[in-house]
Amino acid sequence: MSLDSSSPGNEPNEPLVVVDPHRLEAFSDSVMAVIITIMAFNLKTPVTANLHGLASRVPSILVYILSFVFVGIYWNNHHHLLRATRRISGAVMWTNLHLLFWLSLIPFATAWVGSAHANALPASAYGVVALGAALAYFALQRSILRANSDHAAILRAVGKDVKGIVSPLIYAGGLALAFVSPYIAYGCYAIVAIMWFVPDRRLTKVA
Amino acid sequence: MSLDSSSPGNEPNEPLVVVDPHRLEAFSDSVMAVIITIMAFNLKTPVTANLHGLASRVPSILVYILSFVFVGIYWNNHHHLLRATRRISGAVMWTNLHLLFWLSLIPFATAWVGSAHANALPASAYGVVALGAALAYFALQRSILRANSDHAAILRAVGKDVKGIVSPLIYAGGLALAFVSPYIAYGCYAIVAIMWFVPDRRLTKVA
Amino acid sequence: MSLDSSSPGNEPNEPLVVVDPHRLEAFSDSVMAVIITIMAFNLKTPVTANLHGLASRVPSILVYILSFVFVGIYWNNHHHLLRATRRISGAVMWTNLHLLFWLSLIPFATAWVGSAHANALPASAYGVVALGAALAYFALQRSILRANSDHAAILRAVGKDVKGIVSPLIYAGGLALAFVSPYIAYGCYAIVAIMWFVPDRRLTKVA
Amino acid sequence: MSLDSSSPGNEPNEPLVVVDPHRLEAFSDSVMAVIITIMAFNLKTPVTANLHGLASRVPSILVYILSFVFVGIYWNNHHHLLRATRRISGAVMWTNLHLLFWLSLIPFATAWVGSAHANALPASAYGVVALGAALAYFALQRSILRANSDHAAILRAVGKDVKGIVSPLIYAGGLALAFVSPYIAYGCYAIVAIMWFVPDRRLTKVA
Repeated sequence: MSLDSSSPGNEPNEPLVVVDPHRLEAFSDSVMAVIITIMAFNLKTPVTANLHGLASRVPSILVYILSFVFVGIYWNNHHHLLRATRRISGAVMWTNLHLLFWLSLIPFATAWVGSAHANALPASAYGVVALGAALAYFALQRSILRANSDHAAILRAVGKDVKGIVSPLIYAGGLALAFVSPYIAYGCYAIVAIMWFVPDRRLTKVA
Repeated sequence: MSLDSSSPGNEPNEPLVVVDPHRLEAFSDSVMAVIITIMAFNLKTPVTANLHGLASRVPSILVYILSFVFVGIYWNNHHHLLRATRRISGAVMWTNLHLLFWLSLIPFATAWVGSAHANALPASAYGVVALGAALAYFALQRSILRANSDHAAILRAVGKDVKGIVSPLIYAGGLALAFVSPYIAYGCYAIVAIMWFVPDRRLTKVA
Repeated sequence: MSLDSSSPGNEPNEPLVVVDPHRLEAFSDSVMAVIITIMAFNLKTPVTANLHGLASRVPSILVYILSFVFVGIYWNNHHHLLRATRRISGAVMWTNLHLLFWLSLIPFATAWVGSAHANALPASAYGVVALGAALAYFALQRSILRANSDHAAILRAVGKDVKGIVSPLIYAGGLALAFVSPYIAYGCYAIVAIMWFVPDRRLTKVA
Repeated sequence: MSLDSSSPGNEPNEPLVVVDPHRLEAFSDSVMAVIITIMAFNLKTPVTANLHGLASRVPSILVYILSFVFVGIYWNNHHHLLRATRRISGAVMWTNLHLLFWLSLIPFATAWVGSAHANALPASAYGVVALGAALAYFALQRSILRANSDHAAILRAVGKDVKGIVSPLIYAGGLALAFVSPYIAYGCYAIVAIMWFVPDRRLTKVA
């Protein structure tokens, strides 16, 4: 099922290229671009036009910044991952859609935390979505590896993914600890964001 | 009206390429990407930040998952269909817009089912939209076939479309049976989703 | 200011290509895709899940269909126009943004008509937006013609634009007659839509 | 970290291209396209369908026009800047996301001004967002310069950026003067928009 899609122009007699990585990228980009913008749109204007009104929006703005960085990191990593990808299979398409599914729930989780940040359940729900996205990204990496097992570059690149294993564990911790204090949960999510913010040397540096 | 659009660079004296399949794809991708994200945005945050509040959103989340898979399947199939397409006509452009019209109503139907899932009418309306999209996809396939009648690959590929004939029938059944019980209707829609989820071998395998 | 943008790879010493038509297209496509989807999202779910509730949404759905066809026609024509375009100038970029400005007001006008269709003012406001878009499209054509005055194809293609002159007149009539009856206005807008729906032979046929 | 991304097809043994400028452009375009459309969607329909109702929306429409031009200018400049860019680094990706972050807050600031235009705080908040975007654009320019220090064209092009230095100063003045009168602030923001509307000769003209 994994057909080579590196050649841009296909002759009529040639086997059809099943999936074009560029379209997969473009579609994922569109979804992530809309997610980012919709989250900002979700920031409701303060009811009163004074500092008190603005202060009531500070938690919404803080969780928006967290979610913006969160989606930004996925966009960045997704981009690096697909740049190293030569072949795409049907499984890659669906694992990619699965990742987009979890990312598409980020605006919902962000809006909920923004409106009820002191509660355990929204804080934990945010962690569930983040954990879902992290596991989906892991599955996407695996399906790309299976479809590109003969390409040494991506094998070396994705080979030892410490962050990819540590992140879900911190998210799982955060979503459980939200019931102790939601702020511990937010701290966990922020730690993962900072951890990923540092550029990933694996795909950038290829000896 | 069906002009060859396979040659990327056109000389001034050459007949103009009417439609670029890449722009048709890119536009359709954008619309589907926004549909997916807007549906998730439609998930209203629970009024109370407890399990009761979250439980009240479960039907919305379930129908969101159904609709996400629904749009994901169309994106997948649309992508495969257009990969096999060499020529585009004005009729293809309008049958494609017609498909996007029905897909653009999915967030409306999803939101209605999400807010009143136990009622017959929203369940039936969802089926009307799904049926409209299925028939529109069928019409799109026909118009692409007419514009590409000399290309054996697409002829073979789209030739015997069993799923494309069965799906509208199940949708029609579902939208009628919604008046017996809306849950029968949801069952019908889920069956079609599962049926399509299995990858379509017709366009993937070209001997 | 109108530089040739047909050569994809520019050498450092070569004059920079000011504007890439593909990016202009892609940006316009994105805006139009979001407009279409946002309008559908604007369709509020019926308050009561019965035929009475659905009936209350019929005007919204009808004006949505009109607006969908309206944007679809612009997408189609915009696509044909830019396919015939070789050179882009700064003026083309701004006349294009000006067109997108008017198109971006369509969801607002659509929502207003949908919620108060029996009133003169929303019916007239819809005409103002449609007239603005028609005049903006006309200005876009002129700026593209100025930037491509040496290309015979586009000169012939855009040369005699009867529809482009008649449409604004009908819109102007419609927005005035809205104060006699809003339904006359809707009739006028529908006539223009039908008129344009018939494929434009000018750019399609190039001898 | 700045790898050459001008060659489209990479051999497996070749160092991986970290970032494709086209994807950076496409993603930024998507975000800006959604911002523009979402702002228009934010224009709430008048409560009463008469001139009084419409008049109540005039401030919203005026600030929408200002924000549309604002985003249009960024789209235009961003496009020109990236056209002159040959190499992209990880820092460019993040400074670009940082710019998109500030732009994504424009709909929020626009909606707030639209609903409470006579108040100092929304007028000042708009200036904070505009200032943030201006500084982020400045940082983006710097990071692109660092990644392309060997390309004379971009060095010459971005070299003396008078507007880029004056704009933040006017925004800073506007956001402070909003507490004297919000209308002085709007005047300041309009002056910057007009200043940038005049096409930028630096990147357009390359001797």
